[in-house]
Parts: sequence; structure tokens; C-alpha cells
Amino acid sequence: MFMKKAIELAKKGLYKTCPNPAVGAVIVKDGKIIGKGYHKKAGLDHAEVVAIKSVSDKSLLNGATMYVTLEPCNHYGKTPPCSLAILNSHIKRVVIGMLDVNKTASGSVQFLKGKGLDVTVGCLEEACCKLNEIFITNITKQRPFYAMKAAMLLNGCISIKGGVSRYITSTESLEYVHRLRSRYNGVLVGINTILMDDPLLNCRIKRCNQPKRIVLDAFLKIPLSAKIFSFNPTNIYIATRASSDLNKKSILQSMGVNIIECALSGDGIDLIDLSKKLLERDICSVLVEGGSRIHGSFLSANLYDKAHLFYAPKITGSYGAFNVIGSQAASDFSEVKNLKTYTCRRIGNDIIVEGDF
Amino acid sequence: MFMKKAIELAKKGLYKTCPNPAVGAVIVKDGKIIGKGYHKKAGLDHAEVVAIKSVSDKSLLNGATMYVTLEPCNHYGKTPPCSLAILNSHIKRVVIGMLDVNKTASGSVQFLKGKGLDVTVGCLEEACCKLNEIFITNITKQRPFYAMKAAMLLNGCISIKGGVSRYITSTESLEYVHRLRSRYNGVLVGINTILMDDPLLNCRIKRCNQPKRIVLDAFLKIPLSAKIFSFNPTNIYIATRASSDLNKKSILQSMGVNIIECALSGDGIDLIDLSKKLLERDICSVLVEGGSRIHGSFLSANLYDKAHLFYAPKITGSYGAFNVIGSQAASDFSEVKNLKTYTCRRIGNDIIVEGDF
Repeated sequence: MFMKKAIELAKKGLYKTCPNPAVGAVIVKDGKIIGKGYHKKAGLDHAEVVAIKSVSDKSLLNGATMYVTLEPCNHYGKTPPCSLAILNSHIKRVVIGMLDVNKTASGSVQFLKGKGLDVTVGCLEEACCKLNEIFITNITKQRPFYAMKAAMLLNGCISIKGGVSRYITSTESLEYVHRLRSRYNGVLVGINTILMDDPLLNCRIKRCNQPKRIVLDAFLKIPLSAKIFSFNPTNIYIATRASSDLNKKSILQSMGVNIIECALSGDGIDLIDLSKKLLERDICSVLVEGGSRIHGSFLSANLYDKAHLFYAPKITGSYGAFNVIGSQAASDFSEVKNLKTYTCRRIGNDIIVEGDF
Repeated sequence: MFMKKAIELAKKGLYKTCPNPAVGAVIVKDGKIIGKGYHKKAGLDHAEVVAIKSVSDKSLLNGATMYVTLEPCNHYGKTPPCSLAILNSHIKRVVIGMLDVNKTASGSVQFLKGKGLDVTVGCLEEACCKLNEIFITNITKQRPFYAMKAAMLLNGCISIKGGVSRYITSTESLEYVHRLRSRYNGVLVGINTILMDDPLLNCRIKRCNQPKRIVLDAFLKIPLSAKIFSFNPTNIYIATRASSDLNKKSILQSMGVNIIECALSGDGIDLIDLSKKLLERDICSVLVEGGSRIHGSFLSANLYDKAHLFYAPKITGSYGAFNVIGSQAASDFSEVKNLKTYTCRRIGNDIIVEGDF
């Protein structure tokens, strides 16, 4: 029950703490919650410290129990170690949801046990892991968390003949896409999507987090007249090869656009190199919005962690249309990618399938 | 309420009355049901007559009301006109769900009104029409009712590279396919499905109606060793061109297989000609199970009335795989086919989308 409360608190920080994990903590004495806190934003106090500070009569902490969704940090980062704050608070028992996957910050279980505290690990572990799927992916895979987003017909086509792809899904689906965008640090498209659809790629919900807008454009074909440039160019990141048109690069940079020079793989951006460079820029989670070849290359490279797939109840032939996955099919069923868990529901007149790879 | 009961009764005959409609009737006197009936099978009594016969004390019929889902027949077919049976029974009021679309049989509303009965039309009309979607299609479009059935990956591929297509969906989906088969008079595949998957195409549910098995094979490529021939060849219908291998045709015929000689359209069977010939053989509803080109040609010819689409939570590239719809994409959104109504639910680990075009 107390860990559930800590998870609820952690969720308040969800999508805002990047590159840090979302963490919640409650302090319990004699079966009552006497303190609580969550991590709001990187650089601000961690959940444990917020919770300790929330207790005005510090004498109450003596012999109290802390429930915290993630192993407290044990190192000096932007803030001092939480393990030390817990020790100094005279809390006597710590119940931890999941161990920290970040080796630099972990170690507080041993530290606190060594100091005589009672430490339990693994309470509601699955829910705590789910909470930090982005953080865990960042640390363990050293890349952003990638989610595939696509709107398609019932047979997987994202366009009709000639690549026309607008207005496949309903207003309700589009609204949900805007909510999704606010949950990711970045949205990403390939240059063909810019050339064909000319999207803004913003989040049209008031006061939402505007995601960084990332365009993969190996040969820097993006026209300076693209709509994406019509506001806030400083949150645009164009990934291109080092040898792309220097003049165009400097015009873009003078507009405030960020250029990420990446290695090539075949005739596209090398996604491993890109991933490293996005993470260096604290872009921890990316909603990949296509098109066909982009989804094909992310899927083939096994980079998708999650999928948000919208289906309109419409169907047409596939010849001359773009399929959502523009890459070679598996030649054996063992190579097909599976959604391990997923949900399926109606959204407006469409269907949405959301799941984890 | 009484019409609802009549609809319930009609449903008992559903899928068994072909080429007749499924019809239910109740007879009500002083607010109580005194008689009921439904049409069980072509050639047997119609629902109205069954209901009248079910009333042992015929004097009760005097002044009673009949609720019947479909306009009573008004002609001598396999049985005498129900309109006459109603008139002779001294029933005074008839409430009808829907008018008969079959001009040969209709006319009883005028007839009964002319004889002084009180006749109302259109009670729960939509539900009554839904009940007889197959019959209505047969009469108004002069062709079988066609339902598309396909099992695919999330991007609409029905195979991986090289056409390998087996075992895409789960056991629960396969079981449901067998239930579906029992609801249609026929199941239909193209020759490529026979050559690649070698299916039995039977219904593996005990005591179910075995659907007729239809193969479109313009050039009579079907091998005599195909598994489909392993039982009951007399329920196999092979549609082929008149000039196909005469020797092979006569071997097949001697096995009991039905050969339907059809016109060609391009290098495939002409679906309009086929439709006419299937209906002549009392094949009123057909579950079209693919593959890609078959679905493409039925969809392009605007022949699909319904869809049963299974999605496994799996995805792979589209290049080198078969998309469920092997035909040219629409070049304008107005040409895309829409499911007017549909449902979407989980079945085993899959998703099923079922709807009406």
C-alpha cells in the first residue's frame, strides 16, 4: 500500500525528470504516512530528500520506514547522495521497489545495510520497472527509448498510391498523437516525411512539453521553406552526414537549428551513432513517426521498445502504396518482432494498438 | 418485445435456411404468446405456417396478432403462400419487421390489407435486415454474400519472405475460423493458396455444416495430390476456364469434384460470372480466405460485404512478403473501401476486427 502510494507520487514526475528516473518516496511511522516526495526535475532534490524535508518534526524520523520506488543514489551527482541523507535522518528501515540499473549511482543497499539499516528490495518491482522503462533503456542499452508511432489502413498501408498519406485517421487519434508527443523528449521523422507531408511536429496541447523535433536527413535535402522551421528552430535537430552542404548547414545553424553530424550506414543515418548523440543531448525518449523507410530501419535494427499503432477502418490495394514497415521481411518466423504485451481499443472511429516489444 | 422474440426464433435457423431467408414469427393474443415458429430449412414450412400450426386450439387465432421478421411470402414456391395461411387462420393484425426484397415473393402487405387485416411494417427493421444480410445481398445484388477472412501481421502482411504464411495467429483464432466456416455455405481460396499452404479447408467442429470448398484455378494447376481431395471431393468446386486441360477435368469429375467453367477476366476467373454460377448452385454466402491476389481482386471488384480480420501482435518488413491485399492501391481517398461499422476485440493473443463494408 505504501509502495503503491510512492509509485503514484513518482508518476507526477513522469516524462519530466529526464535524464533522471521518475522516483517517489513515502516515510511511514507507526503505520501512518508522515512524509512524502517525488523527483520533479533533473537538478532538483531527489524524492527521498523531498520526503525527508517534508517532515517538519525531524524527531519523528527516528525509527521510521521509507518506501522508495528506486534504490536511493549513493554518489555525488548534481545533488549529494540520498543514502547519506537517509542515514543522517535516523530512518531505520528502507523498502525499495527496484535496484538502480545505473552502476555509477547504485550501491546504497550495501551502504545502508552496512550502517545497520533494515533494507528490503523488490517491493512491487514490476510496476517500478515499468515506471522507469525509459531510464532503464537509457542506462542498460545506452540509447534513447524508441517508440514507433504510425497511422495506417487495415492492411498496414500508410498511404494510398503515390504516397498520399494525410487524414488517414480520425480527429480523436490525432489528438491522442499530440498527447503522446508531450510524453516524449523528441519526435523523429525521415526527410521523406518532411518532403511529402511537411508537418509541424509540435504538440498542440496548451502548456505541454514541446518535444524536440528530429529529422533524419543524410543528404540535407530539407527545404528552408519547410513548415517545421516556422517556429522555435532551436528545438529542431537535423541529423546529417559530416559532408553535407556546409553553406546550408551554417544557414540552418544561424537560424538556431541544431545539426547532429552522424556516420552513415548504407545511404541512411547510422542509428547507433545517432542514438549515442541523442542521448548525449539528454534526448532520452523518442517517438518515431515514420515514414516507411524510417520504421523499416528502426525495426530491422531492433531499436523499438514500444509501439503506438493507429488503424483506420479502411482498406485498399497495397501495390503502389507505402507499407508502414519499409524494409526486408523476415525470412524466418523467429526473426519476426513480437509485442510481448499489448492493449487494443477503439479511439474515435479508429483502433489503437499499444504494446511493448 | 414480441418482434425481439421473433428475431430470436429466426436466429435458430440462421446459416441453415439458404437460399431462403431466416425468419421467425410469434402469434400473440391478449398480450400473451400463443404460437411461435421459425423457418428451419428450405423446402420445410415457413415460420408463419410453423407458428400457426403450433397453436393447437385454432379458435384462439381469431383476432390474434402475428409478429414476423420478414414480409410473408405471397406466391407459390416450394410451399403455398404464407399470406393465404395467415388470412385463413383469422389472424387480424400482422406486424412485419422488413419488406421482402424478393419481388417474386413480395406483395402480401397489399394482399392482407386488401382483405381487411391491420398490417404494420418496419418494426425493429434494422435488426431484421441484419438477420438477413446474406439473403438481401443474394436478391438485390444477384451474387453470393462475400466475407473476407485474413490472418496477418500488424502491418498487413500475410506471410514473411517467400510467402511462408502458416501459424501467424493463435489457436483461439484458428478455432474461431472453424466456427466461421460453419456459418458460410462456401469457403474460397485461390490456386496459389492451395499450392503454397495445401489446406483442407474443412470445418473441424463436430456436427457442423461443412462448407463447400471453392478453388479459383483458371489454368487448372491444382495437383491431384492436394490435401483438399483427401475427403468428400463432392463438396469441392473448382472454377476454371472452359479450355482447361480436358483430361484433368474429367479425372476430377470422376472423383466427384464439381467443375465450374467460368469466363476469364485478365488472367484470372471473372468474378461476376463466378458469382452468378455460385448462386445458381445455392452457394449464397462465401468466406473468402485469400490469398493476396484473391483478396485484391474481390476488393477491387467491390465484392466484399464483410470482413473478419485477424492480427497477430507481430511485425516484420514488408519487402518480399505478401500484403493481404494484392492489388493496386487507390489513387484517391474516395476510392478506399471503408468498414461502415465494425467491432474490435482480443481473441487469444490476437486481435480480431469484424465489420461490414
